[in-house]
Amino acid sequence: MGLVVQKYGGSSVADAEGIKRVAKRIVDAKKSGHQVVVVVSAMGDTTDELIELAEQVSPMPTGREFDMLLTAGERISMALLAMAIKNLGHEAQSFTGSQAGVITDSVHNKARIIDVTPGRIRTALDQGNIAIVAGFQGVSQDSKDITTLGRGGSDTTAVALAAALDAEVCEIYTDVDGVFTADPRVVKKAQKIDWISSEDMLELASSGSKVLLHRCVEYARRYNIPIHVRSSFSGLQGTWVSNEPREDQKGMEHAIISGVAHDTSEAKVTVVGVPDKPGEAAVIFRAIADAEINIDMVVQNVSAAATGLTDISFTLPKADGPKAIDALKRVQGGIGFETLRYDDQIAKISLVGAGMKTNPGVTAQFFEALSNAGVNIELISTSEIRISVVTRAEDVNEAVRAVHSAFGLDSETDEAVVYGGTGR
Amino acid sequence: MGLVVQKYGGSSVADAEGIKRVAKRIVDAKKSGHQVVVVVSAMGDTTDELIELAEQVSPMPTGREFDMLLTAGERISMALLAMAIKNLGHEAQSFTGSQAGVITDSVHNKARIIDVTPGRIRTALDQGNIAIVAGFQGVSQDSKDITTLGRGGSDTTAVALAAALDAEVCEIYTDVDGVFTADPRVVKKAQKIDWISSEDMLELASSGSKVLLHRCVEYARRYNIPIHVRSSFSGLQGTWVSNEPREDQKGMEHAIISGVAHDTSEAKVTVVGVPDKPGEAAVIFRAIADAEINIDMVVQNVSAAATGLTDISFTLPKADGPKAIDALKRVQGGIGFETLRYDDQIAKISLVGAGMKTNPGVTAQFFEALSNAGVNIELISTSEIRISVVTRAEDVNEAVRAVHSAFGLDSETDEAVVYGGTGR
Repeated sequence: MGLVVQKYGGSSVADAEGIKRVAKRIVDAKKSGHQVVVVVSAMGDTTDELIELAEQVSPMPTGREFDMLLTAGERISMALLAMAIKNLGHEAQSFTGSQAGVITDSVHNKARIIDVTPGRIRTALDQGNIAIVAGFQGVSQDSKDITTLGRGGSDTTAVALAAALDAEVCEIYTDVDGVFTADPRVVKKAQKIDWISSEDMLELASSGSKVLLHRCVEYARRYNIPIHVRSSFSGLQGTWVSNEPREDQKGMEHAIISGVAHDTSEAKVTVVGVPDKPGEAAVIFRAIADAEINIDMVVQNVSAAATGLTDISFTLPKADGPKAIDALKRVQGGIGFETLRYDDQIAKISLVGAGMKTNPGVTAQFFEALSNAGVNIELISTSEIRISVVTRAEDVNEAVRAVHSAFGLDSETDEAVVYGGTGR
Repeated sequence: MGLVVQKYGGSSVADAEGIKRVAKRIVDAKKSGHQVVVVVSAMGDTTDELIELAEQVSPMPTGREFDMLLTAGERISMALLAMAIKNLGHEAQSFTGSQAGVITDSVHNKARIIDVTPGRIRTALDQGNIAIVAGFQGVSQDSKDITTLGRGGSDTTAVALAAALDAEVCEIYTDVDGVFTADPRVVKKAQKIDWISSEDMLELASSGSKVLLHRCVEYARRYNIPIHVRSSFSGLQGTWVSNEPREDQKGMEHAIISGVAHDTSEAKVTVVGVPDKPGEAAVIFRAIADAEINIDMVVQNVSAAATGLTDISFTLPKADGPKAIDALKRVQGGIGFETLRYDDQIAKISLVGAGMKTNPGVTAQFFEALSNAGVNIELISTSEIRISVVTRAEDVNEAVRAVHSAFGLDSETDEAVVYGGTGR
């Protein structure tokens, strides 16, 4: 029995009852002979409440002090969790990110982990204790200031500690039973995936699947740490994410298609009537990059021979839409494009699976499924193991269900899948 | 202009409005040319809410994890305060007790400060920043664990930092205008004291005055740090507490009597019929000490010659009453006293003033005042600069008013004194 890192999200420790339930689960892991390191997020809405307070004293809270504020949330949950474990007769010690040796760069509010030196955690484990670590936070190497890791920070803390401590597995506990072949709220027949490769998981994460964030999967892939995503409300096995299948999964046939993801958080910008000559696209995307906007899909069609003009479309987070339009209007004179079109009523549907590399016909089958469902395709973009299309937002559920069914991903019974936990 | 340490209690930073008001006051001090270090408590009820959460997961929360939990409160208030100051265009940095160099022993929940090494605070000040420090917390020298300082901890943090930084003054901001000659809720004609010696303040604090705790005054006395207690709701001068009067106060006549304090938080235990022979009192108070009970007044009368028996009375916090009775019952057989009497309907009234050392007749005048008011005296205890009596609890207000008036402490107008702040 080796070392296990468990991570519990805010919904798992939303109140005293949740904390006690999680404490019991941790003690069970300890009793089964594991050394246990637990990474915990702030309770339920704590972080939102702290942000609200911050906005009451400062219009745009940011930087060092905002990080100092937000880290109070995990401090509360980790101390309570350690107390609840002690109350069950086991020894637990809580550690801040800084105490746990989570060293980051100095970019407040979205720091990157640059080193993990978990000396105090090792000592606590060697003494037979359970170690509880605050997720989402670290200490900057240069200034020794408290930092936060931004979105998905607690999952990343867990994976980083698992790597530094050479853990057997990093268990990510959440309020769903694992990663599904599609969002079960949309596809009733979606199935829980037992094992998925890191590669496919990365594509799903960047295509709209919300269970794991790209950042955490990428970290785990790099350090070869298996992730087990599972529900903190049930005792069920969840989804294993790893570079290679585990021994007991090696017999399993690796599905051609891992799943269907969708994303309605993006908008589409079309730059209409761009002169088709070298350097025009560069000016457009330099303007977007200088506005610090991350774009996703980019599509350019061949220009109409008669006019020498082409259209360039790209997708971006809806929140960045107005900023992008402003940035492009400022370069309109220089480029001489005709007009801009902005559309935030779109959805992106993606099919992900390493198997499609070697299976011709996946693309055709995907488009046929959409066509049969009467869904019009507006943009297409592909990678080696993913096909993504943009459709009307109103078509998204229909499109996802059609594709899920066409690739044989439907479970045999309706609503066979428990979503949102069983023991809640 | 030198360095000022300001301390703001929980009621001063109870909400966003309070934090903004305090931020403005801090910026004013900075603008007037001071280097400013601010010690802040947790917002309003935060600490109580955290304790309640702890009690939900653990029946008797205590120790390392409880400290980790409680320190989240100051972390929130200090970060918000730093943000609010930045929002006013000034630079502020917040520091945990550990970051500020508040080094303590390892007694969790009531640690003592053993050293202060404010290197990071000095650096922040030298860079022109305002430094905000979490009150009530430190880090243990041995284990590097987070500790809390117990009751009055934030005031003590402020005084300790003022000493380590060689501050001009430690300003303790609270919700009253200063230290009064009596509790203004009881004595309408109580007057704010402009200056009081540390010595007298220590006696008032141990006699029931709640504005400053004994611990903080003692620390300030030892390191010769002037304290200025004042309201965070008004701009008024408050009360200066120092070993010697400041230059501008040297002309002031030092009052014979500083004030009248009262305390209704104690109970009285009388051990009746104790054999009057050596060692009996020692057995009694050893039993009490072993039960970790702090006693206050102790009175023993000469024994009645006929019986060779005496009575021993002492006062103690009401909360410790049952524990004391248990402890004494266990030694009853060995001592052979007759019975125990327990009375929690008492009040202690104390007259404090260094001037009474050299003014004969103060004691007589004190007893006359009580007698004229028809107040019966049950116990008497004196120190060089204090006389305390125990009376019935129901007589306390009448007794305090009578003594206050008899020693010429009444202000000339009724309700001349603002209590509870003006700008709230």
